[in-house]
Formats: sequence, C-alpha cells, structure tokens
Amino acid sequence: MRPSGRAIDELRPVRFTRNFTEHAEGSVLAEYGKTRVLCTASVDERTPPWLKGKGRGWVTAEYGMLPRSTHDRMPREAARGKQQGRTQEIQRLIGRSLRAVVNLEALGERQITLDCDVLQADGGTRTAAISGAYVALCDAVAHLKKAGLVRRDPLIGSVAAVSVGIYRGHPILDLDYREDSEAETDMNIVMNDAGAFIELQGTAEGHAFHKNELQEMLVLAEKGIGEIMAEQQAAGSTA
Amino acid sequence: MRPSGRAIDELRPVRFTRNFTEHAEGSVLAEYGKTRVLCTASVDERTPPWLKGKGRGWVTAEYGMLPRSTHDRMPREAARGKQQGRTQEIQRLIGRSLRAVVNLEALGERQITLDCDVLQADGGTRTAAISGAYVALCDAVAHLKKAGLVRRDPLIGSVAAVSVGIYRGHPILDLDYREDSEAETDMNIVMNDAGAFIELQGTAEGHAFHKNELQEMLVLAEKGIGEIMAEQQAAGSTA
Amino acid sequence: MRPSGRAIDELRPVRFTRNFTEHAEGSVLAEYGKTRVLCTASVDERTPPWLKGKGRGWVTAEYGMLPRSTHDRMPREAARGKQQGRTQEIQRLIGRSLRAVVNLEALGERQITLDCDVLQADGGTRTAAISGAYVALCDAVAHLKKAGLVRRDPLIGSVAAVSVGIYRGHPILDLDYREDSEAETDMNIVMNDAGAFIELQGTAEGHAFHKNELQEMLVLAEKGIGEIMAEQQAAGSTA
Amino acid sequence: MRPSGRAIDELRPVRFTRNFTEHAEGSVLAEYGKTRVLCTASVDERTPPWLKGKGRGWVTAEYGMLPRSTHDRMPREAARGKQQGRTQEIQRLIGRSLRAVVNLEALGERQITLDCDVLQADGGTRTAAISGAYVALCDAVAHLKKAGLVRRDPLIGSVAAVSVGIYRGHPILDLDYREDSEAETDMNIVMNDAGAFIELQGTAEGHAFHKNELQEMLVLAEKGIGEIMAEQQAAGSTA
Amino acid sequence: MRPSGRAIDELRPVRFTRNFTEHAEGSVLAEYGKTRVLCTASVDERTPPWLKGKGRGWVTAEYGMLPRSTHDRMPREAARGKQQGRTQEIQRLIGRSLRAVVNLEALGERQITLDCDVLQADGGTRTAAISGAYVALCDAVAHLKKAGLVRRDPLIGSVAAVSVGIYRGHPILDLDYREDSEAETDMNIVMNDAGAFIELQGTAEGHAFHKNELQEMLVLAEKGIGEIMAEQQAAGSTA
Amino acid sequence: MRPSGRAIDELRPVRFTRNFTEHAEGSVLAEYGKTRVLCTASVDERTPPWLKGKGRGWVTAEYGMLPRSTHDRMPREAARGKQQGRTQEIQRLIGRSLRAVVNLEALGERQITLDCDVLQADGGTRTAAISGAYVALCDAVAHLKKAGLVRRDPLIGSVAAVSVGIYRGHPILDLDYREDSEAETDMNIVMNDAGAFIELQGTAEGHAFHKNELQEMLVLAEKGIGEIMAEQQAAGSTA
Repeated sequence: MRPSGRAIDELRPVRFTRNFTEHAEGSVLAEYGKTRVLCTASVDERTPPWLKGKGRGWVTAEYGMLPRSTHDRMPREAARGKQQGRTQEIQRLIGRSLRAVVNLEALGERQITLDCDVLQADGGTRTAAISGAYVALCDAVAHLKKAGLVRRDPLIGSVAAVSVGIYRGHPILDLDYREDSEAETDMNIVMNDAGAFIELQGTAEGHAFHKNELQEMLVLAEKGIGEIMAEQQAAGSTA
Repeated sequence: MRPSGRAIDELRPVRFTRNFTEHAEGSVLAEYGKTRVLCTASVDERTPPWLKGKGRGWVTAEYGMLPRSTHDRMPREAARGKQQGRTQEIQRLIGRSLRAVVNLEALGERQITLDCDVLQADGGTRTAAISGAYVALCDAVAHLKKAGLVRRDPLIGSVAAVSVGIYRGHPILDLDYREDSEAETDMNIVMNDAGAFIELQGTAEGHAFHKNELQEMLVLAEKGIGEIMAEQQAAGSTA
Repeated sequence: MRPSGRAIDELRPVRFTRNFTEHAEGSVLAEYGKTRVLCTASVDERTPPWLKGKGRGWVTAEYGMLPRSTHDRMPREAARGKQQGRTQEIQRLIGRSLRAVVNLEALGERQITLDCDVLQADGGTRTAAISGAYVALCDAVAHLKKAGLVRRDPLIGSVAAVSVGIYRGHPILDLDYREDSEAETDMNIVMNDAGAFIELQGTAEGHAFHKNELQEMLVLAEKGIGEIMAEQQAAGSTA
Repeated sequence: MRPSGRAIDELRPVRFTRNFTEHAEGSVLAEYGKTRVLCTASVDERTPPWLKGKGRGWVTAEYGMLPRSTHDRMPREAARGKQQGRTQEIQRLIGRSLRAVVNLEALGERQITLDCDVLQADGGTRTAAISGAYVALCDAVAHLKKAGLVRRDPLIGSVAAVSVGIYRGHPILDLDYREDSEAETDMNIVMNDAGAFIELQGTAEGHAFHKNELQEMLVLAEKGIGEIMAEQQAAGSTA
Repeated sequence: MRPSGRAIDELRPVRFTRNFTEHAEGSVLAEYGKTRVLCTASVDERTPPWLKGKGRGWVTAEYGMLPRSTHDRMPREAARGKQQGRTQEIQRLIGRSLRAVVNLEALGERQITLDCDVLQADGGTRTAAISGAYVALCDAVAHLKKAGLVRRDPLIGSVAAVSVGIYRGHPILDLDYREDSEAETDMNIVMNDAGAFIELQGTAEGHAFHKNELQEMLVLAEKGIGEIMAEQQAAGSTA
Repeated sequence: MRPSGRAIDELRPVRFTRNFTEHAEGSVLAEYGKTRVLCTASVDERTPPWLKGKGRGWVTAEYGMLPRSTHDRMPREAARGKQQGRTQEIQRLIGRSLRAVVNLEALGERQITLDCDVLQADGGTRTAAISGAYVALCDAVAHLKKAGLVRRDPLIGSVAAVSVGIYRGHPILDLDYREDSEAETDMNIVMNDAGAFIELQGTAEGHAFHKNELQEMLVLAEKGIGEIMAEQQAAGSTA
C-alpha cells in the first residue's frame, strides 16, 4: 500500500554517521532513507546574556534547508532576509526536545548550539534532526568531559523522534515525502529512553483524527523510536 | 490545589462577546477568565496570488499581543521589525485549525483573515484565540451568505480549543498564567464538533509525560471543549 | 451641515475609562465617539542607556492600530517588518506632548512607556491617544508616589489634544473619519492646562488656509480642549 | 542677542544654485547660510501602481543626511537598514508641501521624485529642502513642457518654507543650529505665493507658547518667506 | 616551508563528486583538500523579470557557509536577517565567472541558479565553489540537452579557479586556512580553458606586492588551474 | 577612438578640493572628470568593540550614491532597507586600500571613518573615492597631530587608484561611463607611492583577457596613478 513498498510499521533505513565534518565538537550526518541532515554541536564557553551568573548553561538549536535540498528550489532564507515561520517552529522544537534530556546546572555556564542543516529532504527532516542532534550532543558532552570541563554528567536521558500519520486511511510509521504530501494526519513524536513523551505534535491536514487512530499512531511511534534509539547506540553515541 | 481554587476539571468563566468593534465582518472578544483576545474576521474579495484562478478561497490568521497585555511589558513586534518565533507558531496554528472546518471551494475565490490580538494575557491566549476566531468566522460567513456571495455553506463543522497540563503531578484543565508557568507538561488541544482532533500539541517542560497521563489530559480536554462549544453557541454563532 | 449632525464647535462624546486592563501601572480606554484607543503606562526601573547616570528619567510612546480597527483591513506592521512613517510620526508626537508636562529630574532614573493601541478608528486617533495617555500617565505616577519611589511630583501640568479643520469651507471641531477624509485642512492641537500650545500641526490637504481661518480654528481648539480636560478630571486622573 | 549677530527678523544668506549636477531633470543646491541641501527632481514616466489608469500623476520626496553633514558623525541610514522616524517625518512633509502647488491631473500619469540630500547641516534643513525642491520641480516641469509631454501647466502656485522660534524669550526668524538646539519653541512654516499656509508645525521644546507668541512668529515667517520667494525667482525658477 | 609540507606549486588533493544529492539538475561536491563545498545547479524555466521577452537566459549564484563549517561557529546569516558583505562579494564573483562561459542566447529564456554551500572550510572556498559550480552547470546543461530544451550548446568554454598568495615572502599555490590567515597577499584567479583571465582579484593584506611577485603568482595559478581542469574532466563533466 | 576624444593613456581632469564641507576632520571633493565624490574623514575617539584594549585603532569606509547621481534614478538604499552587494563590495575595497597605508598602532585606540558619497557618477566612482579618501585621511591625521593626539605618524605611505580596461580591443586608461558600459574588461588598480599593488581587481565582461593585455593595462595604470598622486600632492595633502 505504501509507495515505497514498506510495511505499515517499517522505518526507512536509519543511519547516524559521526565525525562527518571536522571542526565541530559533535558532527553527525543523520539519514532517514533519502532524508539527510547534517547536525553539528558547537560548544560556546559563554552563556547567553540572560543566564549570566545563574550557574546554568543552555542548549539551543538552529535549522535550515539548503535551497536545493528539495524537489523544487526554495528561496535561500539568508537572501530573503528572514527565516520562515516553519523554520522557527522546527528549531524551537529541536531545542526544547534536546533540553529535555540535559541537566543545565551540570552543563555549567556554557552554551551548546545544535545546527541542523538539511542536505537532502524526503520527509521527516525535523525528526531526523532531533535524533541526529542528540548523537552530536553526546559527542560534544564527551568532549567536555574529556577536557575536564564538567564534573557531573549533563545528560540525563536520551531522545529520538519519528513521524507517524494517517495515509489513505491507515496509520503508518515514518512518512516519506510522497506519503507526507498526501497524508490526512501528520504527527511528530519525540520520546525519551524511559518511553515517555517529550513532544507530541499532531495536525489533521485533511480530516480530523479520532482517539483510536491516535492510539494506533502512538503504538507505531513507540516501536519506531525504539529502533532509532538502537541505531543511535550502534553509532557509538555514549557520552 | 489550584491557585485559583478551581476544580481539576473546571474551566475559567468563558465568554464570547460578538460585535465588539464595528468595522470587521466578524468581531468577537473572547475571554477565558482574565485572558481577553479580540478576534476579528476580515473578508477580502481578492484571493492570495498563488490561488488565483483555482476556484478556491483561503482562510489565514495573524496573532499579536499588545505590549502591556502581559505582567511585564514586552517589546512591540512592529518596532523590533519582526515577529517572534512564538508568534508565528501561534498564528500558523490558528490558521490551520480554522481551515479544518472550512470548505475552501464553497468559500469561493476570496480570503478571510482572522486577526487575534491579545488585550490581556493570563494563560491560554492561543486557545481563546482559536475559539473566538471561530465565532468571528461564523459572523463573517453569515455576512457573505446574507450578501448572496456564497451559495453553499463554507462551514463544515465547528472548532474550539483548550489547554490541559500536568501541574504539581496532576492533570488539570485550562491553565491560567500561574499554573502555566509552573506546569510540567502543557498541551493545547483543538477539536471539532464531531469529537475528533484537529491539533494536538503537547510539550514536556519539566519531566516527560506518560501514556496514562496523556489519556487523562485528553479526557479533560474533551470535557472542556464541550463546554466551550456550548458557550460559542450561546453567543449565537450560527453562520 | 456636519454628517453627524453635530454643531460646528461640538465634540463627540469623550470618555476615559481607567483600569481597562489589569497589568499596567496605568491603563485607560480613551473614547472620542467611536474612536477607541487603549492607552497603557508601563514603568521600567531602568532608564534608557543614553541617560544612564544623568539623574533623569524618560517618557516615551509607541502607537499602533489593530489591523481591522479601520474600515478596510490594514496590513499588520509587525508582519510587514516595519512601522510606517505615519506611525512613527504619531508616536513621536505623543512622546513629545507628554514629556512637556513631566519634570524628568523629579521622575528619577526610570522610564515610562505609553502604549497607545487603536481598537477602533473613526478619526482623531492621535488626539485621543494623547489625552488618554495623560490619564494613564497620572495613574502610573500615582503608583510611583504610593510606592514611595518619587519624592517630588514629576507632573508639572496636564495635557490634552483635539483636532480642528476646515470642512466644506467651515472651521469645525473634532473631526470624525467622514469629515477628516473630506477636509481641506486638518490641524492637531495639543495644549496644557495653562492654555498654552505644546504642539500645533496644521496641514492643508486641499487648499491652503488663511490667517483668519487659523484664528477661528484656534478658538475651537481651545474650547474643545477645555471640555476634554474636564473629562480627564472627571475620570479621576489626579496623580 | 543672536549668536550670529543677526537681527531678530533677519534671514541667513539664501541662495539657490540651479544645474548643480547634470543628470537630473532639476538639480538645485539650496543654501540657507551654512545649511546646504542638494535637491534633485527626477521624472519617471511610470506612475506608482496605485494610481495606474487614474489619469493623474504623483509628486513624492525622499530626504537624507550625509553621515558627516552634522557636527558629529551620524550612522548611515542605509547601513543601519532603516530610515529614522525623523527622516520619514521630513520627507512626508516635503512631499505634501510640493503636492500643494501641483495639479496632478495636469501632470499626467507620471511621477516626479524630489531627493533632498543634506551636504552640510546648520539648522533648517527641512525648510531649505522644501524651498530648493520647489526650484528643482520648476526645472523638471519646464523640461516636460519643452518636450511637449504636458499640455496644461501642472504648477498652480509657488511654495517656500522657513523656521521661526522662541529663543531666549524672543521670537526669531530662520534658526541656525546653535539657536535651534537652545530654542524653547521651534516652528516650521510652509506658505504659498498667495500668503496662505500649507503646513504649520510648532513644537514647544522647553515651555509651551502662548497665542501672542504664535502671532509674532507668524509675522516673522511671512516676512522671511517673502524674501525666500524673491530668491527663488532670482534664480530663474519659472517653469 | 608550508605548514602542510606541500611544495610551493602543489595543489591540495582536488576532487569533484557528481550526483552528491538527488533533486538538483546538477549536484557536485567540490573538495580542495579539507575544503568541501556542495554546488548544485537548479534550472528554473522562468527567466528573471528584467529579462522577460529578451530571448536570453541568466546564470546566477548564491553562496553560504554552514555555521559550523569553520573553526569557530559563525552566526547563521538567515537568523541574523542579512547576508554579510563578504558573502555577497563571493556570490557575485561566482555568478560572473560562470556567465563568462555561457552563451545566454543559446540557453534560452530560463535561469540556472548555482548554490554553493560550504560544508567544511579550510581556505579557498570561493575557488572550490567556482570550479565545482562549473561541473554542476555542465550536468544541468546536459539535462537540458537531453530533454531537447536547448538546440545550440550554451557552454562556450570551461572555467576553473584557484588562489595564490605570498606566504612568508614566497609565492605559493592554493592556500589553506593556516596559510591564508598569515599570507601577505592573497589573490583569487579565474581562468578559462583558453588560458585567458576571467577574474583576477589580488589583495595585499600585509605589504603591497610588486610586479615580479604578481608575475610569479600568475605562473603558479596557470599551472594549478590546468590541473584542476583535468580533474573536472576526469569527473566526467562534459555537457 | 574614445568617445571623449581622449588619448588611450589620458586621464580625465583630476581635481581634489579640500575643506569642501566644514564639520569633518577631513572633507574632500574628488573629481575625475564629471565623476564627483564627496569624501569625509571622521575621527571617533572610541575604537570598535572588538579592538578594545588592544592598543590599535581602525580605519573603515562607507560608500553611497545619491539616488540621482546616475543617468536614471536609482532607489535610495536607506529606503529599501539594505545596501546592495555592489555597495558593500566597494566600501570594503576602500577600507582595505586605506588601511594598507596606515600604521594602526601609531593611530592609537580610535577609529577613522571615510564616507564616500557620490554626488555625480560618470564611471570610476570607486577609484575617485579611494584617491579622495586618502586626501581626507591626511587632513584628519594632520588634525590629530596638531591636537597632540598621536605621537608617531600613522601614515606609512600614500595611495591612489585608477581604472583601466579593454575598450573595442584596446587597453585604455580611466574609463568614463560610456566606455565602461561597453568595455570588454574592466580593472581597478590601487597602488602605493612605492609603485606596489595594494589591490588588483580585473573582470572580463565580454571576453577573457590575455596576459599581454594585462601587461599593457598595468603600464597604463602605473602612469595614471603617478599623475593622480601628483594632483593629491598639489592639493596640499601632506599629513
């Protein structure tokens, strides 16, 4: 039934390639099928001004798409002079999701910025960004530990994300672009390694969804996130 | 347990005052307790450029807060020269929620803009905005019908929204500012009159929430939205 | 002769409603007929940077119109990314007018911002804003006095404003929208309680005006401002 | 009494140099003493979009100061990315003043833009800009006539401007920078050749001004504008 | 003498990987050592407005650096709301260089946009971008030919670029970051396959350079560009 | 052969008028034929933030064109809200060129800003700006010396600039607008008084240029720059 021939509860091949570039404290290429997002974690020893002297650090995220990461070329946001609402929505989501597994006191008065730049888009860029940013964050934290800059572990859990949706009347896992553009409902789910929800964002595009459909989607998401977390671990992301 | 003394499943007093201002085709003051949002619906007989000649109309929303609608004065977005990410996120949410109950073909090649401006903020401004915008939209559609500009009814359902959350470990309904700033989880829920979900946006601020907590919040939301829809009808919003 | 049936020297009903919203130190709904402007005064205990350490405070103003406060919807300035020239002109006028009755040394190193937001426009929004902002300023100053934050009274006079114009060849007082859009000359006058001029801004829209017409307009303005000041006092604005 | 030794009703030397640059249809250096403003008039055979097909033209103005036209260097507006409120206020004033002497139907469907750029500032830049822009406008209109592009004369009068003020308690004419920065009241007056007012903008900087002071200032302005109009004619500005 | 141990006239390993991403008509990863630039060519069947109906096409370029492509994280231009001067300078250079080998009439009324995004920076990003963009352009032109959209070959030559400089008193070829940040002179040279110059941009950072130094640098550049062109061909870039 | 009748190696009349305006520490009108650029040097006793406490100063430049300095009116950059790429490119070039002859340690912790504003454009505005800015810089440095603010001479050489190009197949010196708009190659050359290159920026507009053409252009430039330096000295620019 799915254009890709996948089963209803089947993820695309998920892969996290660490050290994809050299300068960043963490640098991970996250791939969900043809969706490829470069996630870097940059440590800045200065805290943002509004946190100065409060004994805590901060984790934030920025998101962008290369103009031709998409089927048709999109205008470059830097050239247009502003980020779209969608971009801001996504980077706020990534930031909140990562902060949910960080002890900001333990991080100390410094900031980690997660830059998630989409090299190729085929649906699910925000979920791939979250999962990849977590791996990059682990590497940045490992870097801080190795340098003796943090004493307690700032990481208090792990995080991964996946999309689910209703496609031609059926709940499915990990929508690609063709599915996404036709789906009646699209839901992005972020969970931690305790199986609890960090974010849940569901939108009915075509027709509103019912409680039982929600239930089925949650089950799919839980399965998918478990598999993605396994890939994160396989990539060696242990801060 | 709640600072306001409300029961766990108790809404604040909800009120919709129609014809709050005179010029707009629909103008509603939506109040959820001390939260007051002025929602106007403006009909523009021109469709946005990208819809020209497609035989469909459009419904969109804009959101703003008066600088001193809040406890501390916020900078005026018009003076800063851009809308914040939060503002864009909210106005996109309002627009999607309203479009979910509109048949854009029946609306015809015209646009309705819903302006939701917060006069006073005490938590839940986006949910009050959605519920109030729906009432304003009804008045604008009634205006179109009366003028003979639409033949079929563009409204295919009704919509209302409420927030739920986990506060001091308990699921509660319709958070006010004091509750919201302390809540561990905050979820905004938009439903239609068939009891189905249009939007579901849950965020764990402090600790991640579990499936059973989600379930309890959904029950509270359903109850609250039913009561809000009754107030919408009582206000006479029948397009 | 006037569309509204008013006499040539007759104001619209003028009303100042204090405590219109709760958070601000001063909050006043100013109404000149159907023109309704929400004026809030916000105290900020920080002075602007360029006044730091100079022993003086500052009073400033910002002005905005809700998009559908007007007959036709206007684009939202926050969405367009900048304030129009007209907006800046008006907020500068409001700020200067209010500063004319404030002893900035007595105010001390703090800033009061007057936000004037038009809920409904029917001509004369800037004059209603000035008169209403004065009442809000009084309440904010009373708040400072009560809190023991100022020793000397920072208010050295009162201020009110009204428009006059030449309409179909006759000088008239307090133009509403229909009169304003047709007037040959439009003049905004700001005076203090000593009967002296703080601002005088006259513009010939259609044909230039002569000295005798100017004289007649000044007489109307003086009468109108006296009546508006009586309403300000009736509203209880005594700092 | 005046720092410059001028009499109370004495203008600075006023001079209009036509053809100051070569490309524009009108190009005039306007000097009021040390204040030097380059005013060019540019004809554009396209009308602004909102006037298309209405059988009328438009006259508009833009104003700028070179960064070091002033005693201390000011930031360049193009580099800061926006025009200040003062700039917008002035260019709107110049535009309105010039349109007051133009028959836009006779001008036909074209636009004339008056660019007023201050090379050196010593008070009164906006009044010098208006008087100089008028001379440049005359040359542009003469150009249109000569080219046979207009049949009726679009100019229906002439316009000039001057500042007056209260300085150390005395009304004075044509304030220079030292006077302006100390003046208690500052008023810009724009008149036509029939002796009628086009614009009147008075601001009390220090103490409010009384009706008799206003009267004295108007007499000074009338005298000054007469002399400036004589210089405009001497420069040969006869369209 | 060089930090990398390279000979004075030795390029870093140069590599062009075609089809690096899938959506674009041309997509090439250009590598000059550790400098990695993703160059995509996007065909737009609409010509820019100012070329409409002129029977010619256009080739343009945009350039960006991922925030952590550099040693220290740079602010994201999209978030700051504008492109830096350096960025604009580089994208104008890339555009001019590519247009120098395109027959715009033969291209027809369409536009090709070359997006050059730096994934990792180690000196020479603009020269790698030009050489890589040429390969991507070839693939986009091949795509147009295959689709029968162009009749004559729009490519009238090939183009490549390299930097040269004076480092510790010696002319060297293809500076990496460590060399570049210390160089006394830095020159970017763009040549075509006929051995002629398309662009020559030399800047003395420390001390001015003499004619004989210029001569030596030109010899190095010519050698380097020959080798780079060989790599372009080896990558199969034959439109 | 040249439209102006000039010989191939003949400059336009070059003139530097010092003290063109009064407020700046240096103010020079630079004329290359009909090209007229007002160059002012402004001393700011504060260093830019990133140089604070480093014992060095800074020299920077800004460039602008009056809207009607050109044949057709150009949009005002301040009104459009941003500087074009070309503007930024030019002001960066001017800044680098001037810094090449300044000892920033000797200048001390202060900044000199060179504002180059084009009053009339007829080709070669950037080269006239550089040569004129140098004369203004000399006057500003003389001002600092006279005031005893610098001990060592911050000027370590002199700088001038000229354009050369290939026009109808022949190398020519100092292109005016008509030549420039038709030239096949355009090269801007900045040299110091030791005959060495500070900047070299050559662009092939039509066809690429060969090494021998480059050689001929360099000879022309050297001759022209010698003559311009003589005019700089004749103007009395000896700091």
